[in-house]
Formats: sequence, C-alpha cells, structure tokens
Amino acid sequence: MDLDLDRDGPALTAQLVDVPSVSGEEGPLADAIEAALRPLAHLTVSRDGQTIVARTELGRAERVILAGHIDTVPVAGNLPSRAEGSRLYGCGTSDMKAGVVVQLRLAAHLPAPSRDVTYVFYECEEVAAERNGLLRLSRAAPGLLAGDFAVLMEPSAGQIEGGCQGTLRAEVTAAGKRAHTARAWMGRNAIHEAGDILAVLRAYVPREPEVDGLRYHEGLNAVAIRGGVAGNVVPDECLVTVNYRFAPDLDGQQAEDVVRALFPAWPVTVIDVTEGARPGLGHPAAAAFVATVGAGLGPPRAKLGWTDVARFAAHGIPAVNYGPGLPELAHTAGEYVETAAIADCEARLRAWLGALQGSHQAFTEPFAKRLTGPGLRRARSASCAGSRWRPPSRPTPRRRGDTRP
Amino acid sequence: MDLDLDRDGPALTAQLVDVPSVSGEEGPLADAIEAALRPLAHLTVSRDGQTIVARTELGRAERVILAGHIDTVPVAGNLPSRAEGSRLYGCGTSDMKAGVVVQLRLAAHLPAPSRDVTYVFYECEEVAAERNGLLRLSRAAPGLLAGDFAVLMEPSAGQIEGGCQGTLRAEVTAAGKRAHTARAWMGRNAIHEAGDILAVLRAYVPREPEVDGLRYHEGLNAVAIRGGVAGNVVPDECLVTVNYRFAPDLDGQQAEDVVRALFPAWPVTVIDVTEGARPGLGHPAAAAFVATVGAGLGPPRAKLGWTDVARFAAHGIPAVNYGPGLPELAHTAGEYVETAAIADCEARLRAWLGALQGSHQAFTEPFAKRLTGPGLRRARSASCAGSRWRPPSRPTPRRRGDTRP
Repeated sequence: MDLDLDRDGPALTAQLVDVPSVSGEEGPLADAIEAALRPLAHLTVSRDGQTIVARTELGRAERVILAGHIDTVPVAGNLPSRAEGSRLYGCGTSDMKAGVVVQLRLAAHLPAPSRDVTYVFYECEEVAAERNGLLRLSRAAPGLLAGDFAVLMEPSAGQIEGGCQGTLRAEVTAAGKRAHTARAWMGRNAIHEAGDILAVLRAYVPREPEVDGLRYHEGLNAVAIRGGVAGNVVPDECLVTVNYRFAPDLDGQQAEDVVRALFPAWPVTVIDVTEGARPGLGHPAAAAFVATVGAGLGPPRAKLGWTDVARFAAHGIPAVNYGPGLPELAHTAGEYVETAAIADCEARLRAWLGALQGSHQAFTEPFAKRLTGPGLRRARSASCAGSRWRPPSRPTPRRRGDTRP
Repeated sequence: MDLDLDRDGPALTAQLVDVPSVSGEEGPLADAIEAALRPLAHLTVSRDGQTIVARTELGRAERVILAGHIDTVPVAGNLPSRAEGSRLYGCGTSDMKAGVVVQLRLAAHLPAPSRDVTYVFYECEEVAAERNGLLRLSRAAPGLLAGDFAVLMEPSAGQIEGGCQGTLRAEVTAAGKRAHTARAWMGRNAIHEAGDILAVLRAYVPREPEVDGLRYHEGLNAVAIRGGVAGNVVPDECLVTVNYRFAPDLDGQQAEDVVRALFPAWPVTVIDVTEGARPGLGHPAAAAFVATVGAGLGPPRAKLGWTDVARFAAHGIPAVNYGPGLPELAHTAGEYVETAAIADCEARLRAWLGALQGSHQAFTEPFAKRLTGPGLRRARSASCAGSRWRPPSRPTPRRRGDTRP
C-alpha cells in the first residue's frame, strides 16, 4: 500500500486510518511509512521492529523530536473511516493517526528545517510498557533519540499540554478472621473493615500544585476491590487497589510515601509506579516552541494523564504534548478528528520548524515575559549546548502489569 | 469392603472414615452400608442413587427418622484415620461419620424399637442443593420419608440443637460513572460509593429473637465484593454480596423485605433464599426426644447455621440436630471426634428408641414442666396422629448457586 504524502492532511489521515494497526499488528502500516520515507534524500531512515525513525542530518544547532505512535486500540466496528461534515470518523483518527499524518507531511515537505528533526513513528503505545516502541528504541539505539526537545503528538485538542502526572498503583489490604456467617461474631469481616479504607479515599482532598507555572490536579481512586471466600464465610481479606495520579513535583518515592501515609493502618503493597514529567517549559527549546506554535492558542496547560513525554523527561529531554486529536474521544467507538485541526497543527509546526532560530516574533504572553532580558540570553546559550539521550539519572521506575499508565 | 456392625462405635467410625466418600464419590461406602443392612431381617432396605434407606415395619404408633449424610468435603491430607488418646482424627470423623455409625449400630442392634425407625444415609450434602440426596429422595420416593419426627445427626457436640436459621444472599450494587483516573472528577467512583453499603453493614445490629423458647442470633455480612474496570479507570459498578442469616420466625419473603429495607438506596438482587426451621420443640415427638435424650444435657439451643432439618420442617416434620461430632471442626484439616461422644450418643438414642412410649421418667427441667398436665395429654394424642411427608405448603425456596447454605 503506497502512501501519497502529497495528499492533504484529512485525505492522508483517512488513508492511514484505513490501514488497521491495532497494537501488535502495525506491520503493514510500518511498511507503508518506511516505503514512503526511504526515497526521500533529505532523510536518514532506520527501523527497529515496527518502529520507524527518520532524521534530517543538517548539522543544525538544535535537534527536535516529533514522536507519535502508529498503533491503535482494538477496532470497535469503526472502520473504514468515514468523513462527515467537518469530521473524519474512525478508529485511530484522534489517537493518533491525524498526528502521525502531520509528522509524515512535515517529514516529506520540509527538506531543510531550521532545526534538525527526528521523526519517530513507534509501535505498541496502547499496551504493556515493555512492548512500547519508544522504550525499546531507547534501549536498542539510544543515539536515535538524542535531541534537545521533543513533541509528542498525542491528541491534545490542538493545545499545548506540558509534562504529565505520574501514576502509582498500590494494594491496600484489610484483614479479618474467617468464620461461618451463621456465627459471624467468631470472626472479623475484612470487607466491613475495608469501609475504613474507602473512608480515606472519600475524605481525600486532591493537591493541585503549580509546577513550572502549570496547575496540576492529583487524584486518588479505588480502581478495584475484591474480597470473599464463599457465600457462607466471613471473609478474612479484602484488597483495595488504589491509583494515585501525582503531580510531577513528586518523584516515585515521594508518591509512595504519600500513599503509605494515607493508609497507615493497613499493609500497602506498591504494584507499580511510573513517574511523571515536569512541564519543563522554562527550557529554551520548549519556550521557543510555546512562543511560536502556541501563538494565539490558550496558555499551555498541565497534562494530567501519563504520556510518553515522561520517557523523554526521564532522559533529560524536555517534551510537550501537542496534537490535533481530541483526547476525550480516544478509545471510544465514536472517535473522530476535526479535519481543520490537522492542517492547523501542521501549519503551526511548519512555522516553527521553518522559522530561523532566534526568530521570536510570535512570542505571546505570558511566555514572552519570562524569556526577555538575561533569562532569554541564558536560555539561548543553553539551547545550543543541547542535551542528549543518556542513561537515566534516577532509578528506572518500577512497572509491572499489562496496561499502560 | 465388609462393615462389621458389631464393632464398637469408635472402631466402626475408623472403618467408615477409611472409606473415602467425598461428595459424588460415595459409591463404595453406600455399597458397604447397603451390604451390611440388607441381610437384617427386621429392616426393609431401599436405595436411590447412593442414598440408602432402611426401615423397621413394626406398625408402631410413631415413626421417627434418623438421617445422616455419608459424604465428606474433599480430603485434606487427613486420611487414613488416626486414633490419638481420646480422639479419632480424620476427614469426616465429626462431619459426620461418627453420627452415621450411631445410626448403623442402632439399625443393627435394635430389632424392635419402641417407635418405628427410618434410617436415611444420604449422599451429596456438602455440595449444591440440587444434588442433595435427601432432596432427591423427597422427590423420587416421598413415602420413604414419612414420619412424625426427625433427628439429623449433624455434629452438635452431643447437644440438642433445635431448628435452624434461614439464609439469604443478595447483591447490592453501587453505581458510578466511568472516567479516566487522571480526570476522576469527570466520573463517580462506584467503589467509593460502596462505602455507604459497608457502613450499613457495620451499623447493623443483629436481632436475637426467641422462637419457640430458643434464642436465635441473626447475622448480616458481606461475603463478597468486587468492582473495577482497569487500573486507570474510575469504576462504574461495585457489587457487594451480602448474606443474611435470619431466625426462623421470618419466612423467605420477610427476610427479603428486611434486606431491601436496609438498603433502600441501592438496587438489591436476591440471589437465593433458603428458609430456616422453627425448633418445633413443642411438638410431642420432639418434646419426648428432648426429655429422654436430653436428660442431663444442657438445655436445647438454637441451631444458627442452616441444616437439612429445614427440609423436614418444610414438609411439616419437626426435626432436631443431634450428633456426636464437633461442629467447629467440620471442614478443617484437623477434624477429629471425641470417641466417648459416639457411645454416649448411641446410648441416649438407644434409651429413647428402646423406652416404652409414655415412659417419661427421664424428663428433666425445664422441659418436663412444659409437658405436664393437659399439655402433655394433648401432646400424646397429637403424636399418634403423626404427620406424613407431603408436598410443601409454601413455595419452594428459591435457590441457585453451587454452595450449600
């Protein structure tokens, strides 16, 4: 299947959507992307599994990364794609083939961007972390992910979303003593005891800290509860699985400390912790991005869910979420994308990548203010040094389980 | 395998215990029981599946039933049997092969009891109600279960336990609204909502009504809880399964009304209801049993668990629980029986079945008091009329699920 990168964004999105690429079945789409990019002389193309990397090698002072996953959640009777008015419906339209199309069209049509660009099209974002193409690539060929700044093209409704919150899951266990329910007073009902755990959850007031200028909003929820031995037995154990979404001013250990402090009366077993990412918008590369791409948009906002920006952040590369899809439609059968958003996203990124470095005429409030005077000079100087993908400076977050955070 | 019914109680119990008879595998033990009883001229023996019925046919004014199940729960590394001091250890010692041995020895050695006796050795008491041998027999050959009074030889530590409580299971559902846990405020957490259901359970104060002179003790317990969609989703449903043990002054519908009234704010789905049995100790046959067998024992007490006495009671036959086993050891790996209790149980029943009708010299307080004067005369008169197994006078209790109550 040949991709025609000269098609406009909506048409190319429809073509991509019509190549199903449920996680683990990205092969045909990865083949098509590779085949479309390999002939382009200004790109160096690599492949790892179903992950394709295309890089310009222009010797620019900065290198930026545009990354997007090419897999989707399982099809829900919503293929092939269907255009209706201003919308294109179908599995993966918003999450995130519209964003992938923007990457592809920029890759094809910007042979000499102002910053070197690494385009990453990766597999298996929607499934277990161990299968994630970005993680695999960071292990197999970390050099391919070197860069000063990254844009993750996850659906963000065309707004810039900075950083992401971390996520921790833990089991909190209420204990009891078994007995026959006809003589319940000889035991202690662990499910009844779990009422106190639920009371903690209900009384919890989320923190809403400001981190690097963005307002986060934490959350603590029971995501599972189970208990029970038999229909005539007072149960001796009830497990409540809680999910703590924590702002990026906390690292994983601090998040664990928060949860343990909330449940001092019960054994707490941490199942997994995945740290978030500070928005890093003070970084010169990020600030320049916000100034140019964000011109006329609302102010950047905090990303509350976890995304792969955390993988970049963990390696010292500031990253933001920015894509044309609508996040609230992700994983729904009625998923669609507003086609106008695709062109708008492409135009903004093209303006940024096409602009000369140091051209800050598009700066808007309040970010312009932060980057005037000595701060701006320091920022520009720092941006030239660049950062590179390097071994994590803190322990790799613990992760197990088979769902993405 | 030949059973020697001339062995003493403990030795015969050991022999029975060493014929494994986990529910569904009672064949060899049923064969042995049938083979031991068939040659006895004073008994008429029938068989239905693995259930054996042996009856005297002496034309006595009263017919009593001694019933016991021959199956056990799964073996837990506790076979073969092992004698140690005053105890005999092994799977089924207390629940309830010691009781079955008492039945067998009375059947063999009381050729001319004062009351006609129907000995029932039945299968599959420990599993789903539909497989219960007593239930099957009541459908296949109800005439075999005709009688004035029944003794269920379940373990009761050598005490007389009257009637039994009923049991009801219901699901109480807390509802919510799904959302991503990173934006939990867009949903409503059903597990958190279930905290209110648990609060009802914790605040519940059990009724302890006196029914026919015995003090019952109700109970309301969560026996299962489950909820949860995925590790990152605010769940929209949490099911709490509650088990209500209700005294026999309530029928099934009344018990259901109690549960619905306790949880007015939530959908309540009744899974199963099994009615209990009033102790019926005012019935002349029961009173005579208590007076003779219970002489020197503590006063009869209420049976709080559900037993097959309810099957007799539902058909108008008063029934008590009385057996040599220890109920708290039932279904435990360390199950044993005090061997002295086997002979004591046998001696008391022999005294009752051997005694002339009308011989009440063994009456003890406070039961003697109740049965003197006109009451006693009425009682004797009524006992001659006898009651017979007949179709239930109220709807068959709803039951599903695969555990015994």
